[in-house]
Amino acid sequence: MLQQTFIAVDWGTTNRRVYRIEHGVVIETERDSLGVTAVPSGGFAEEVATLRARHDGAPVVLAGMVGSNRGWLDAGYVRTPATLEALAAAVVKPIDGVYIIPGVAHVAQGHGDVMRGEEVQLLGALAAGMAPADALLCQPGTHCKWAWMKDGTLSSFVTAMTGEMFAMLRNHALIGQEMTGEVTPGDAFAQGVREGARGDLLASLFGVRPASLLDLRDRADAASFVSGLLIGADCSAHAGTGEVHLLADPALGALYSRAITELGGTPLLVDSHAAFVAGVTRFWEYFS
Amino acid sequence: MLQQTFIAVDWGTTNRRVYRIEHGVVIETERDSLGVTAVPSGGFAEEVATLRARHDGAPVVLAGMVGSNRGWLDAGYVRTPATLEALAAAVVKPIDGVYIIPGVAHVAQGHGDVMRGEEVQLLGALAAGMAPADALLCQPGTHCKWAWMKDGTLSSFVTAMTGEMFAMLRNHALIGQEMTGEVTPGDAFAQGVREGARGDLLASLFGVRPASLLDLRDRADAASFVSGLLIGADCSAHAGTGEVHLLADPALGALYSRAITELGGTPLLVDSHAAFVAGVTRFWEYFS
Repeated sequence: MLQQTFIAVDWGTTNRRVYRIEHGVVIETERDSLGVTAVPSGGFAEEVATLRARHDGAPVVLAGMVGSNRGWLDAGYVRTPATLEALAAAVVKPIDGVYIIPGVAHVAQGHGDVMRGEEVQLLGALAAGMAPADALLCQPGTHCKWAWMKDGTLSSFVTAMTGEMFAMLRNHALIGQEMTGEVTPGDAFAQGVREGARGDLLASLFGVRPASLLDLRDRADAASFVSGLLIGADCSAHAGTGEVHLLADPALGALYSRAITELGGTPLLVDSHAAFVAGVTRFWEYFS
Repeated sequence: MLQQTFIAVDWGTTNRRVYRIEHGVVIETERDSLGVTAVPSGGFAEEVATLRARHDGAPVVLAGMVGSNRGWLDAGYVRTPATLEALAAAVVKPIDGVYIIPGVAHVAQGHGDVMRGEEVQLLGALAAGMAPADALLCQPGTHCKWAWMKDGTLSSFVTAMTGEMFAMLRNHALIGQEMTGEVTPGDAFAQGVREGARGDLLASLFGVRPASLLDLRDRADAASFVSGLLIGADCSAHAGTGEVHLLADPALGALYSRAITELGGTPLLVDSHAAFVAGVTRFWEYFS
């Protein structure tokens, strides 16, 4: 049966974004804070039933942490190189009309990494022509993903705890007392990026406090400098000097763009919501 | 007046170690948790008076955070290259019979660093012949100090937040849930050291959780692996392949020794308490 209308949910740990898609076009979008951790264990079937009732019982495609062991059920992982076709072949259907997209695992030389939800954006960006079939894509955030696409597949990826580290330093480190200013992609940020690229993060971070004590840096710049250190360390380890396609909100996009530019690369901004919609729509075509 | 007996206090943030020294020999040692933060503001004069009363009113030499703005008073910093003679020339005497040793500041190429208390150990190690006049010394801990000694002076140094980072990750990061095992200088630690030396700390740290999820590493080894990552990053940025004189307690000394060896250097253990006593005794000779 050809189903031209479906509901796509990008269901993360703390947030949920719902798209009603008809004939490949987003008709309606809603965002709420009903992330996976806000749904009681065993409550996903009811939650999805409520959602479907609001949409004439349309089928739903779920991506993200909803497919983890903290979500509805563990939808497992497909291995790299991953494609939308491989994800569709491994789809998990807990009940009729509900499709959970599995995550992707990458294992190489004894190192492993996983993602859940980001793969739809990544492969969607390629499907929609927002990035070429061979490209480096970056999704900044609490856990920043760097994905190397080859021949249109998700070939390998790595995750850095860049955003989590920034929040942890600000809330719990001694230098957190200095990190009270706003983070902006200005000179202090760029100085942090260059120092972060030196690869001595533990000493560079400690140096924030002496820089204040010895009047070497304006205290109001400390937060931007630390953000630059972390994003600079992240980009210098992964970005290289070529093009990086950034799937980011405007604030993080501006910071990563500045860092990549500062380190000799070329940032290109991609609309991450459009990429998700393109990916989930292409995914849905395997079933409709 | 020649004063052959004095009391030396290594007065840190959370602990205090008191030495009664007569003719250069330690007669008595006590250690308590009366660190600088445990003494009420304005309470240092009374605290020191109590201490002196127990020791026949002998003069006291104070080193460490007691000379900071969170201690008795800010004793300032001497600049690198620093010597015991320069520290003695800049001594601060808040009251008769009390000598507070200043800290040391190092500023080069717009970067600054400070220490307070460690300088006595470092210069003492050289004064006592525990390390040569040209040497790299390392004091592992919450804030790990690396000090380059030249011609018998403290020439330059850098601090890394290695220990603070480990504690923060264990207590506040997502990977903290994995870090429940004991830290030992075994194979998982050495694996962490080698990976930490690769210079991609933010990704290496994130990788701890996928390694458990994908059964690539025994969960009981996660804490040792993370310790290895951090100490490996610290040592690879600072130690080189020559000799490193370690002023450390046995547990941290074993971890840093293993890391330095793993990265091609040669660790040499130095008794940090003996180094402090040697330094403070030599310091005192300028006044007695």
